[in-house]
Amino acid sequence: MTQVSNEALKQLATVSTATLTSLLYKKGFRNIFLQGVKPLKSGQRLVGPAFTLRYIPSREDLDGIEVFRDQRHPQRVAVEEIPAGAVLVMDCRGDASVGSAGSILATRIQVRGAAGIVSDGGLRDAQGIAELDMPSYCAGASAPTNLIKHHALDVNVPIGCGGVPIFPGDIMVGDDDGVVCLPAHLVNEVALEALEMERFESFVLEEVRRGVSILGLYPPVDPQTLERYSNWKANQ
Amino acid sequence: MTQVSNEALKQLATVSTATLTSLLYKKGFRNIFLQGVKPLKSGQRLVGPAFTLRYIPSREDLDGIEVFRDQRHPQRVAVEEIPAGAVLVMDCRGDASVGSAGSILATRIQVRGAAGIVSDGGLRDAQGIAELDMPSYCAGASAPTNLIKHHALDVNVPIGCGGVPIFPGDIMVGDDDGVVCLPAHLVNEVALEALEMERFESFVLEEVRRGVSILGLYPPVDPQTLERYSNWKANQ
Amino acid sequence: MTQVSNEALKQLATVSTATLTSLLYKKGFRNIFLQGVKPLKSGQRLVGPAFTLRYIPSREDLDGIEVFRDQRHPQRVAVEEIPAGAVLVMDCRGDASVGSAGSILATRIQVRGAAGIVSDGGLRDAQGIAELDMPSYCAGASAPTNLIKHHALDVNVPIGCGGVPIFPGDIMVGDDDGVVCLPAHLVNEVALEALEMERFESFVLEEVRRGVSILGLYPPVDPQTLERYSNWKANQ
Amino acid sequence: MTQVSNEALKQLATVSTATLTSLLYKKGFRNIFLQGVKPLKSGQRLVGPAFTLRYIPSREDLDGIEVFRDQRHPQRVAVEEIPAGAVLVMDCRGDASVGSAGSILATRIQVRGAAGIVSDGGLRDAQGIAELDMPSYCAGASAPTNLIKHHALDVNVPIGCGGVPIFPGDIMVGDDDGVVCLPAHLVNEVALEALEMERFESFVLEEVRRGVSILGLYPPVDPQTLERYSNWKANQ
Amino acid sequence: MTQVSNEALKQLATVSTATLTSLLYKKGFRNIFLQGVKPLKSGQRLVGPAFTLRYIPSREDLDGIEVFRDQRHPQRVAVEEIPAGAVLVMDCRGDASVGSAGSILATRIQVRGAAGIVSDGGLRDAQGIAELDMPSYCAGASAPTNLIKHHALDVNVPIGCGGVPIFPGDIMVGDDDGVVCLPAHLVNEVALEALEMERFESFVLEEVRRGVSILGLYPPVDPQTLERYSNWKANQ
Amino acid sequence: MTQVSNEALKQLATVSTATLTSLLYKKGFRNIFLQGVKPLKSGQRLVGPAFTLRYIPSREDLDGIEVFRDQRHPQRVAVEEIPAGAVLVMDCRGDASVGSAGSILATRIQVRGAAGIVSDGGLRDAQGIAELDMPSYCAGASAPTNLIKHHALDVNVPIGCGGVPIFPGDIMVGDDDGVVCLPAHLVNEVALEALEMERFESFVLEEVRRGVSILGLYPPVDPQTLERYSNWKANQ
Repeated sequence: MTQVSNEALKQLATVSTATLTSLLYKKGFRNIFLQGVKPLKSGQRLVGPAFTLRYIPSREDLDGIEVFRDQRHPQRVAVEEIPAGAVLVMDCRGDASVGSAGSILATRIQVRGAAGIVSDGGLRDAQGIAELDMPSYCAGASAPTNLIKHHALDVNVPIGCGGVPIFPGDIMVGDDDGVVCLPAHLVNEVALEALEMERFESFVLEEVRRGVSILGLYPPVDPQTLERYSNWKANQ
Repeated sequence: MTQVSNEALKQLATVSTATLTSLLYKKGFRNIFLQGVKPLKSGQRLVGPAFTLRYIPSREDLDGIEVFRDQRHPQRVAVEEIPAGAVLVMDCRGDASVGSAGSILATRIQVRGAAGIVSDGGLRDAQGIAELDMPSYCAGASAPTNLIKHHALDVNVPIGCGGVPIFPGDIMVGDDDGVVCLPAHLVNEVALEALEMERFESFVLEEVRRGVSILGLYPPVDPQTLERYSNWKANQ
Repeated sequence: MTQVSNEALKQLATVSTATLTSLLYKKGFRNIFLQGVKPLKSGQRLVGPAFTLRYIPSREDLDGIEVFRDQRHPQRVAVEEIPAGAVLVMDCRGDASVGSAGSILATRIQVRGAAGIVSDGGLRDAQGIAELDMPSYCAGASAPTNLIKHHALDVNVPIGCGGVPIFPGDIMVGDDDGVVCLPAHLVNEVALEALEMERFESFVLEEVRRGVSILGLYPPVDPQTLERYSNWKANQ
Repeated sequence: MTQVSNEALKQLATVSTATLTSLLYKKGFRNIFLQGVKPLKSGQRLVGPAFTLRYIPSREDLDGIEVFRDQRHPQRVAVEEIPAGAVLVMDCRGDASVGSAGSILATRIQVRGAAGIVSDGGLRDAQGIAELDMPSYCAGASAPTNLIKHHALDVNVPIGCGGVPIFPGDIMVGDDDGVVCLPAHLVNEVALEALEMERFESFVLEEVRRGVSILGLYPPVDPQTLERYSNWKANQ
Repeated sequence: MTQVSNEALKQLATVSTATLTSLLYKKGFRNIFLQGVKPLKSGQRLVGPAFTLRYIPSREDLDGIEVFRDQRHPQRVAVEEIPAGAVLVMDCRGDASVGSAGSILATRIQVRGAAGIVSDGGLRDAQGIAELDMPSYCAGASAPTNLIKHHALDVNVPIGCGGVPIFPGDIMVGDDDGVVCLPAHLVNEVALEALEMERFESFVLEEVRRGVSILGLYPPVDPQTLERYSNWKANQ
Repeated sequence: MTQVSNEALKQLATVSTATLTSLLYKKGFRNIFLQGVKPLKSGQRLVGPAFTLRYIPSREDLDGIEVFRDQRHPQRVAVEEIPAGAVLVMDCRGDASVGSAGSILATRIQVRGAAGIVSDGGLRDAQGIAELDMPSYCAGASAPTNLIKHHALDVNVPIGCGGVPIFPGDIMVGDDDGVVCLPAHLVNEVALEALEMERFESFVLEEVRRGVSILGLYPPVDPQTLERYSNWKANQ
């Protein structure tokens, strides 16, 4: 398995999820953007490998409030074992009628150095989580305890989240649009391409702002576009 | 019927809906959080007894614009009869394709001293309502007049709102996560328990921020946790 | 066909979508508010004639990334042909799992003098679009490229958007509640009525703020209301 | 209030719900067909006045299995008080995750002479109910007891069912397409018009089967159509 | 444009939609099966080129019952112009709350020699349509007239139906599972491959019925499988 | 872990899912009925322990048609390892846009002696599967290959299906209403209670058919009911 480089992670922190979905689409991937998963706060960036937690529907005799007394409860294990830099990704089957974590667990995750939280369920005490210096993404604020709907089962197995397959170690990248999941083996290559694509789009945006038509410019079908871009890059 | 104390209402204004759903879950209640109902403005707190308005689907011959000329129209009655301190809770069958009230009615409700508005339909002139000094919760901004979808029928009868049963006099509590409905007979007891639970969670949050693991701390399975908490309380 | 007057467009920029839906309801129109379409930024106003773009579901062999090299691609044509003052309205069949445009196209549209963008799909780089000095409305931020779901087909034909029929030249009006579509032949007449209705509602709001009951005031069943309103208008 | 005639009820048993929705549409009614409500068995006809039962969401402390021991439980009251010839219409807020009645109650209703059952929730033991000599319509077979989701509240009050307003005494008419609710005051008039419309459509269908174009025939814009129809009627 | 051969159409009448989706998946097509569109009657087969009708949402002033008096009304035009052997495919934006055609129009279509009807909306008088000797597929029986929701706009333009792009002349194939849309240029090639795949699957089914494991058999990874298949074919 | 007895399995084959949901509700279980999962054919009964297959969303580079050549592919493993008498239960996250198995695999499962198939996704060649002498339940017929949406991951792990937690070895019971999942440790006890409850309900149905009111009879609050029931049992 290709090792994801730190360089690539740094590069990904500067590129948009829109750029990444376009690059992955060119490579044949149509389903890497988590549907229905939104940032709790705007203006933040998320990058890090997925560390997953799988829930199945809860059952009344298995999911009383007392389960949290068990130190091997998978949700507790996930919170205490997530590596620094990783992103906790929770599979709630898209059910946001309850929270999948609250501000105490989120704070613990942040203190442990995690990069962020992603859930296709709800988050409770959402305002408290939003105020942490760590980005969180979910399907909406939702006060009820997760036990009402979710039985925590497995840590760090492949899951679905927001309709997207997530394998442990895949790289989660988030911005204000939402979150994409990059298959680990593509990350180093994609990060470089994304940097270049963002650079070109910066040039395009400048051109557009000064009144240039997008025809021939975006994509750069017109040879003069590439020439102007070449000059623009030289002047950066 | 137990009287809800003013003391309890004051206490509830300081505790979160997340805490209340956990406490009620321990007592066997799984469905007290209104689904799909969100605050129009963040940072507000709602507490007060439910005063309800029931809509059924509208009918073209019964719900022309002229119905508002009738001073006994149930929506108008609700607005002019809601007691000071109460919360207007509207059953729109979760249909937010139209508004269930607008800024003029909302302003009248506020002037009359009501505690807030909760609807599982839309609200129109939502920005105007958000700017009132009174919290409002709904399923989203929605400009069309309620007559297009809703026929106002009854005032202060039991209803469903956001999938939750609401009996007149139940206590509605709202924060940034959303709104819970506390059955009236449980309120005094729950308010006290909630205060204590919030106090403990404040301690836990401090512990977590200084690097303590949640294992043994939350819940306080570890006897040392309870001892530290005891000291912490003594020092408050 | 009645010509929409510039005067009417100016008037519409000062009236709310709530007022317009009420007026149109009186004329028998129940479905002019675009469902599920929200502003990217609050506090903006949209007014302008619809210039439409129709998408159908995409097909893998027709919608590769290379289609944008074709200068006659309907999305590109729409962006480069939209008249100054017009609103680009996109029919995405309500599918917001992908974006229907991004910040480069939106910037180009703004530079060309368009009045705004309305889509019942997603918008990508949504924060970048929100920062433009031009209002945009959509079903949510969504990073993936439109090619994954949408095949651009036609420019300036009748479409559906947010469940509402939109004919080219209909007047789109948006505020914080969302967007309404006014059939072109009604605009001049409705604009005037809306101005008067807003004036009356300003009076009503003042009355309500000073403690007057809505009974007899709103609607003004009580003759004294109309007299007070007459005086109020004289004093403006 | 106009009395619904027995003659009208008999006539309605011979006309289709499609015909009735067209006639009501001409009179300005757009929402009389119950959405999501289907017959348990094909080939049956339902006609009778609505006798309603209103449910709100259930609550754990109010809706234990023991509530059925109370002879005043509204569901039991409804079953034992429904008049002969009437239709039990249940408002389940469109939630079919549980049954709203089972085969024992349905059998009791049939034995008491009721005309049928309509629910926008589920029905349990649905096959057993389908085999009764009484038509039933619902949102699908669903085994769980209604107590899990529904708290029976009121008998014979106005309700919504399938998104349609139902007032006690409105006439429910069902066929294989589903169920319509006719406002009581329109029934006598509509029944006659429906008979005539069905007669004309029988003529049209014969014409179409022998190869006549629908242009000029349906609707009968062509004067010769009306003449042929006149002859056809004379020959019946 | 490749001409679709009559031979191919005959072949397609003998292969299943499941087989066709697998073959098209191998060629990179993931979205050719119409979602939410079901046969009105089981045991029928549909094959024929698409002849389309596009609806947008209706508008009260444009879609009164009198529009059908206009012989150029697009729905009427579609019914009277559909070629023999073609399939009427209607884009109802997936809205089945009303019917998109009834038994009179369906009968006229059948008399004119059409191959069938496909709609992602409802069909009214659905039982009457089911009894025709022509297959029809839709999103469910639905009595209300189409005018309540649908404004007929265009005949034989590209549309979406059941979430699938449909270009006039694409080949619609239906069985009990539902309907697929084959892009016209692939039909001749796919028909042949499908015949062969069905033949192989008949062999596989026989093998499975006599107790053979699917491992090595399906797909035929095991060389002995291919040998047995070769013998099987020789013996047919 | 309590062993499920063969006796209990036989008893369960004679009791309805409605009875089982009522009994489990009395024991505090509110969520044992699989939502959205319907029988392919009526009149069949399903009983057997769950043998599970877990899917996550598929990924283009992992789920090409060639994966089925791998004999360790989890779907193939599940089909070839399911024990006689067991029920294959598939977690498709409720996505029925594709099939989760077809008639060849279903036939193989039947030949191997399995008791049935349950999926909250679709089934392809659904008519072929319905004709097997083995009951199957799913969210609907759906022709596309599972690879388009589902990546087979795990065999015989706990899953969710139809919103219900399913642990391997839980007992699946199905009839015309649908499917319930009985936690394994409750089965022996519940089977006996269900037999008795069904016997009492047979008595009640007879009483109701001969005109007895349900008040006092069902539940048997009236002492005379119990006496009559006692006699009835003696006479069986």
